[in-house]
Amino acid sequence: MTKYIISIDLGGTNLRIGLFDQKIKLKDKLSLNTKRFASKWGLIQSIIDSIKLIIKKNKLSNDNISGVGVGLPGPTDYASGIVYFFPNIPGWRNVNLKKILTSKLNFKFYFENDANLMTLAEYKIGAAAGYKNGMGITLGTGVGGGVIINGELFRGSKFAAGEIGHLPINEKGPSCNCGGRACIEIYVGNQRILNKAKRVFKKEISLEDLSRFAARGNLKAVKIWRDVGERLGIALAGAVNLLNPDFIVVGGGVSRAGKILFDTLRRTVKKRAMIVQGNHVKIIKAKLGVDAGIIGAAILVKQRGAI
Amino acid sequence: MTKYIISIDLGGTNLRIGLFDQKIKLKDKLSLNTKRFASKWGLIQSIIDSIKLIIKKNKLSNDNISGVGVGLPGPTDYASGIVYFFPNIPGWRNVNLKKILTSKLNFKFYFENDANLMTLAEYKIGAAAGYKNGMGITLGTGVGGGVIINGELFRGSKFAAGEIGHLPINEKGPSCNCGGRACIEIYVGNQRILNKAKRVFKKEISLEDLSRFAARGNLKAVKIWRDVGERLGIALAGAVNLLNPDFIVVGGGVSRAGKILFDTLRRTVKKRAMIVQGNHVKIIKAKLGVDAGIIGAAILVKQRGAI
Repeated sequence: MTKYIISIDLGGTNLRIGLFDQKIKLKDKLSLNTKRFASKWGLIQSIIDSIKLIIKKNKLSNDNISGVGVGLPGPTDYASGIVYFFPNIPGWRNVNLKKILTSKLNFKFYFENDANLMTLAEYKIGAAAGYKNGMGITLGTGVGGGVIINGELFRGSKFAAGEIGHLPINEKGPSCNCGGRACIEIYVGNQRILNKAKRVFKKEISLEDLSRFAARGNLKAVKIWRDVGERLGIALAGAVNLLNPDFIVVGGGVSRAGKILFDTLRRTVKKRAMIVQGNHVKIIKAKLGVDAGIIGAAILVKQRGAI
Repeated sequence: MTKYIISIDLGGTNLRIGLFDQKIKLKDKLSLNTKRFASKWGLIQSIIDSIKLIIKKNKLSNDNISGVGVGLPGPTDYASGIVYFFPNIPGWRNVNLKKILTSKLNFKFYFENDANLMTLAEYKIGAAAGYKNGMGITLGTGVGGGVIINGELFRGSKFAAGEIGHLPINEKGPSCNCGGRACIEIYVGNQRILNKAKRVFKKEISLEDLSRFAARGNLKAVKIWRDVGERLGIALAGAVNLLNPDFIVVGGGVSRAGKILFDTLRRTVKKRAMIVQGNHVKIIKAKLGVDAGIIGAAILVKQRGAI
């Protein structure tokens, strides 16, 4: 019987579900708006319904499914499947998601941090394929990250490695949701950029428009993206000095700002990092887009030997 | 025939040579002041003379020596043994030290960064034994570091990983020797602490005295060490968020400042790092002292299978 993998990427904005074959080729996908669900239970039910739907829609039975990979947007014990909390989805605290899901659906479930899965996907079949050591970073509402060491995702001692968004770039500075101060996420998260754009342009302006203005040479828009690139570059220079990686792959919505952001980022890392590390590291634009999370979750299931 | 390992730890201040048995037990050691040597060649000759001396002094022959481990204080291609440069020893630039040494002495030479060797030593037989993931940091003229991942020293893609001293703690700030800005090393290196102490006490004061004053409750001295602990804690909080390590082992001269420094460091890391990572990491005082470098070099030789 042909075996398939189901992938789930749970984010603060969207819930994405993918169906993959054994070669990690995407066969089908669904997407729902997460914000529709007022409660934790509504969201969990919709995960279950979506899994059933994608199986039925593709005329498969449960026996065709070798495993379900789930990407999660917050601190979780990924071995036991217990979610500690989600910074951007209210109502989740110490939820045994693995137990809940397996009580409703007789599948093998595998859990991982969403930014780790993006990093894994870009490393295995995306923009960073072929390297050995590196980092992934996703720019969005929050700034997530993942670390690849000797060709493997490095999870840290308590599954919490890769929090590139929480490298501090100042001794003093605004408080961060994480409990720290002056984390890079505060300076380059979506909301901060939108607020800055609103102040500068004296009206609401989308990130897409801000990127378009910058591409056309609008100096105010260029300045906003350069500031983002410089600050991110300072944080990444520290990580580059610490890990001497081959690559940093940059994804997420903000990364679509394009050339101005990437040029500034590359220049700043080269200027601020040490010579050997700064000359060696490649800063690469992610290429798998919004599917990176579900692709990474499928790779996770395959790596765990479930197919 | 009984086999021994010779270890060399080349620092900006001292050249240390050790003789170890197969169980990494120190049998004999020598120490020379590095500053005596005006030229690169004088220093290299003294390394050669010291190796010959420690063999002769212990009534051994060259056949008893299974390998020579060398710890170096600056960017080096550790595979080829080519030194790029030493920040604190002038006159070394693109020196093929392996070639020079093997042309004079028929031994197998193994090279590694000195802070990496301290980390390896503390991890294998020192204060951090038994953990899995962590970092070592040495506080001295410079601030060096090393990274342990999954029980192994992590060298990075170009042998330059572990530069914890060059994590930036401010966007803007003083220029660092490394080419960057506002690196933690600038704020907590020996010279900075001594300069600060001189300004505060209006006379030259040694680090030992500054530690003694602090231990006795002198508020000015306490404040200086607290500042060091806080700033170091901010830099380490970032590294802890990124790597979610089990431990950070802190060594080097400044670490002897003791309780005030360590208390502040632990409190700051806990306050500034993310919950899971901050609660998990142990900040440990190194216990191998000035011998950590030569012990690490001996472990390196043993790991490479030369004994």
